[in-house]
Amino acid sequence: MDPFEVHILGCGSALPTTKHFPSSQIVDLHDKLYMIDCGEGAQLQFRKSKLKFQKIDHIFISHLHGDHCFGLPGLISTLGLLGRTSDLYIHAPFDAEILFMPLLEYFCHALPYKIHFSNVNSEESEVIFEDKTLKVTSIPLNHRVPTAGFLFEEKPRSPHIIREMIDFYRVPLSQIQAIKDGAPFITGNGETIPHTVFTRPADPPRKYAYCSDTAYKKQIVPIIAGVNTLYHEATFCTADLARARETFHSSAAQAASIARAAKVGRLVIGHFSARYPNEQILLNEAMKIFPETQLAYERMIIKI
Amino acid sequence: MDPFEVHILGCGSALPTTKHFPSSQIVDLHDKLYMIDCGEGAQLQFRKSKLKFQKIDHIFISHLHGDHCFGLPGLISTLGLLGRTSDLYIHAPFDAEILFMPLLEYFCHALPYKIHFSNVNSEESEVIFEDKTLKVTSIPLNHRVPTAGFLFEEKPRSPHIIREMIDFYRVPLSQIQAIKDGAPFITGNGETIPHTVFTRPADPPRKYAYCSDTAYKKQIVPIIAGVNTLYHEATFCTADLARARETFHSSAAQAASIARAAKVGRLVIGHFSARYPNEQILLNEAMKIFPETQLAYERMIIKI
Repeated sequence: MDPFEVHILGCGSALPTTKHFPSSQIVDLHDKLYMIDCGEGAQLQFRKSKLKFQKIDHIFISHLHGDHCFGLPGLISTLGLLGRTSDLYIHAPFDAEILFMPLLEYFCHALPYKIHFSNVNSEESEVIFEDKTLKVTSIPLNHRVPTAGFLFEEKPRSPHIIREMIDFYRVPLSQIQAIKDGAPFITGNGETIPHTVFTRPADPPRKYAYCSDTAYKKQIVPIIAGVNTLYHEATFCTADLARARETFHSSAAQAASIARAAKVGRLVIGHFSARYPNEQILLNEAMKIFPETQLAYERMIIKI
Repeated sequence: MDPFEVHILGCGSALPTTKHFPSSQIVDLHDKLYMIDCGEGAQLQFRKSKLKFQKIDHIFISHLHGDHCFGLPGLISTLGLLGRTSDLYIHAPFDAEILFMPLLEYFCHALPYKIHFSNVNSEESEVIFEDKTLKVTSIPLNHRVPTAGFLFEEKPRSPHIIREMIDFYRVPLSQIQAIKDGAPFITGNGETIPHTVFTRPADPPRKYAYCSDTAYKKQIVPIIAGVNTLYHEATFCTADLARARETFHSSAAQAASIARAAKVGRLVIGHFSARYPNEQILLNEAMKIFPETQLAYERMIIKI
């Protein structure tokens, strides 16, 4: 099966710590890379991941707080130095283009490639990007500024071919795609063999949801229901719930409640406040509600 | 003696590597911190250094290329989150304020402190900053955009008091400062004792020069003559001299020639091109001309 992996480049929050970089991730699906958020130092972590810079065409920015986008000018500049010529698409809240373009025009005025900004709808869930293999949908979140999470859904895949049956009926190679698509096979004797004889059902499409930053928001549950992995911010522990409310962030327990309600396969929590040198407290609080929880860490690779 | 140290936060060049951060340094003198350049990730490296964020009041930016200033918005934002209230002074080429203020107004609109930008003269050497203990002078460099290096000079210090002579003549504490400043002491018998009896000459003022980025420029030699430590960029090795000329950078040998001509105490080379996984070649080429050379590295602490 093609890999569908998420590489955590940074899972800290606004204040730097000796342990965490600010938010950034790379989704690796069918040999293409997609960046989610681009905090300061994202390009440095990207380099360390050994993933290829030229495989990235789309960057998704959840919201315009510095710890989610201050890495953009550096990354864009580096892509230029590396000789990129293909267009780059940045999906971000409305103001991103107005804010970053003057800086890019000054510092990267001779970029050998084009940048296209497009606005992400953070009010309603809508499809932001779609191709043959992937659909990315916005997840409206509840933060201090317009914010959207992102649902990465693999497109339904072709059924598996049963090699032995193809050999048995001597199906020519040229007809295999049609059979995968549901056509029957007509033998030399004029016998009609239904496609199901030749195929096993496809693996179910895999799904990944990224929800950061947000206050506890139950309305996202139907959008993310059943995803294989949910990354949800868990900035605070329950003792600091008042601070979480004030700043429109979630506690680890709230992240776990969302995971449980959405019946996700696994929860990965991140965007940790700098106040917790030991994040075990966040993990413990989440696991009480949703045992399949893990702490994010820099250079973690999540297999979806 | 008060410490005078330089902490290297980053010594790479524009392209990120797995080893280096882009340019940034902290000068630590008399318990105050001064930042030189602020490449992406500077605040993350600053945090790792265990130096105190609140001790920084002045930031010096050599030139407006991204690898020397893309860390500014993140650092400025963090200083605000940490509750800073005292003014921050940014000494940088003319356009810095125009470029960064719109970003700061959007992302850091409720900063609890003021930022003052002031223009650095990169055409002529002039004093940029001065207080009781330190003078910072610009060093005009030769790069693709207006660029200045920085000379950090300790102010002449008071002579050392010879405790035994103070006790012998029973000099009251109240007169010691006057003696340090050159006044004679009059004994109870009306005898005049010159100040030199009570003092040993002060240690010579220490000096540090930062020269990055620049093509080979011999005219800087008189400005940096005799500094204890010179940090000079050495982006390329001699085999890539054509590329150095094209991009207005120096080779390691050129950096060493400057160090030798200026009779500096020690040369530290940095701003390494990403093309040299092994920087030993740069060190070897420099040491042939100026043996007292060291390679910079992240978290290096240089005692001036």
